[in-house]
Amino acid sequence: MFFKWHNSFYKGACHFLYFPMDTISKIFGISYPVVSGGMAWCSGWKLASAVSKAGGLGLIGAGSMHPNVLREHIQKAHKATTLPFGVNVPLMHPEQEALMNVISAEGVKIVFTSAGSPKKWTSFLHGHGIVVVHVVSSAKFAEKSEEAGVDAIVAEGFEAGGHEGREETTTMALIPSVRKATSLPLIAAGGIATGEQMLAAMALGANGVQIGSLFAASEESSAHPHFKKAVVETGEGGTKLVLKKLAPVRLIKNDFFRRVDDAESNGATAEELKEMLGKGRAKRGMFEGDLVEGELEIGQSASLIQEILPVDTIFKKLIQEYNDALCRLKNSRLD
Amino acid sequence: MFFKWHNSFYKGACHFLYFPMDTISKIFGISYPVVSGGMAWCSGWKLASAVSKAGGLGLIGAGSMHPNVLREHIQKAHKATTLPFGVNVPLMHPEQEALMNVISAEGVKIVFTSAGSPKKWTSFLHGHGIVVVHVVSSAKFAEKSEEAGVDAIVAEGFEAGGHEGREETTTMALIPSVRKATSLPLIAAGGIATGEQMLAAMALGANGVQIGSLFAASEESSAHPHFKKAVVETGEGGTKLVLKKLAPVRLIKNDFFRRVDDAESNGATAEELKEMLGKGRAKRGMFEGDLVEGELEIGQSASLIQEILPVDTIFKKLIQEYNDALCRLKNSRLD
Repeated sequence: MFFKWHNSFYKGACHFLYFPMDTISKIFGISYPVVSGGMAWCSGWKLASAVSKAGGLGLIGAGSMHPNVLREHIQKAHKATTLPFGVNVPLMHPEQEALMNVISAEGVKIVFTSAGSPKKWTSFLHGHGIVVVHVVSSAKFAEKSEEAGVDAIVAEGFEAGGHEGREETTTMALIPSVRKATSLPLIAAGGIATGEQMLAAMALGANGVQIGSLFAASEESSAHPHFKKAVVETGEGGTKLVLKKLAPVRLIKNDFFRRVDDAESNGATAEELKEMLGKGRAKRGMFEGDLVEGELEIGQSASLIQEILPVDTIFKKLIQEYNDALCRLKNSRLD
Repeated sequence: MFFKWHNSFYKGACHFLYFPMDTISKIFGISYPVVSGGMAWCSGWKLASAVSKAGGLGLIGAGSMHPNVLREHIQKAHKATTLPFGVNVPLMHPEQEALMNVISAEGVKIVFTSAGSPKKWTSFLHGHGIVVVHVVSSAKFAEKSEEAGVDAIVAEGFEAGGHEGREETTTMALIPSVRKATSLPLIAAGGIATGEQMLAAMALGANGVQIGSLFAASEESSAHPHFKKAVVETGEGGTKLVLKKLAPVRLIKNDFFRRVDDAESNGATAEELKEMLGKGRAKRGMFEGDLVEGELEIGQSASLIQEILPVDTIFKKLIQEYNDALCRLKNSRLD
């Protein structure tokens, strides 16, 4: 009662108390509504467990793993922490069935699926008592995910690194539209590397955030040090979405990128692009550190990443920035 | 004192009181930190004066006007309201000198310049006691604008409608980076059509917002009713940035768009695209209502615009949404 009075006396009344991140924290059993992206070549057990220990939800990225490698990472993560962590499985993975069997056998409790139909694995995973989150890049696929019975959604905007949707909808436009389309818990991704951006995502209607680039460049990331350094050095305009005729991917503008970009500009066909891409370029760039010929997947927020930090420090920074930004906004009611 | 105690008792303390929009309201002498974009074929005296009367800053878009037409619009706006309004001048306009003379002669007090160097007109305009705001799409040009002595900046993201920057930086990534680069008052543009998005822009560090698409489809917009209807019917993924080899522009996906998009995908040269574009297509689409062959410039936020409303109703809605979203966030401090 007094709270309401005080508030309305000061700058207008709020008629409800609501904590947007409660849903996410409860679903996953975590302290902060922050998920680290399950990124190929970056998100091993070390990053995932560090994020979970810092109070977020760490994801192991199975996209770059064979089933036996994934098993090893899950077992190491279990040894490193008793806190919840999850696994991300891109549904274009040729060994997805074996991966899913490893996941359920090893007692993983949370799975993020992406790049495919949310119908494919949801009931299998639910059957094993696993929380299922599906990654989408449009309101339409958010609706399909809800129909498929998933427990939460990640909506990822155009500014994100790596592979993404064809419609190029940015986080600013995407989150409110997904928020309207579904009542499922909603995690915003794409362009988030600071506490201010976290707060912006919450303002747009998200209940939590998934952060990629910032953790890709963290100390605990399994990416090559050269790649992490390249991320820190990437300035504004230093990335671009290419390979749109294959699977659109946002890359740092290196020599390989420029060849592809020129070819696309000159009308290269999907076949020609496939040949230019070849095999193993993401590994070559991000895991082996070939900054010239590798595929260097990163989001636009790389321009806001200034140093390679341990996960624990990153969390402290994010939370401080979030709270400071919230303080700045708190009394901005418009009358 | 009590406020602090109460706050910290409840969910952690804020150590400062700060109203991010105060700067913008003071600079322009307006009630709400909302500027309507100075859009070609949409932003005439009617829209500009309606926005100013509703408490924001209305802009007349000189991009589609000859000097004598602009004079008429300024005079009508002056008759319609004594409240401040401004004029937007794209610096690729062939008659910009004559436009600037009309602006200073007719006693306009606020000018937004875009698509050119901020050095070009700033001292001329300052010499006439005019507040100068420059539109940028990168932190680098924000710095150049500050050097040129402008009074405020609009930073416009990739999701915006019409012509935009080549780096494709989205509002989510752009605003924090421009905020770091300059201490000038900062207006966020691109992807903003709801109060939630306004709040998100403020969280990112903006002091105010510039809204285009929503006002382009307002009752007072001078656009053709067919175009306004097309905006309302545009769904998610219904726009795309094209003509990147000329001046990148975000368009609704109509027949003309598809021809251009196909040609680009097949490697069309700048010359070929110029020929396809021809002259007067923006007028044809937005002012004359040719939805098939016209250029239909609109932002991604069109998908969030559900009806053609009067400006006054739009403002009430925006402010209600902003305050509600702020209420939802108010107690979301992370501890």
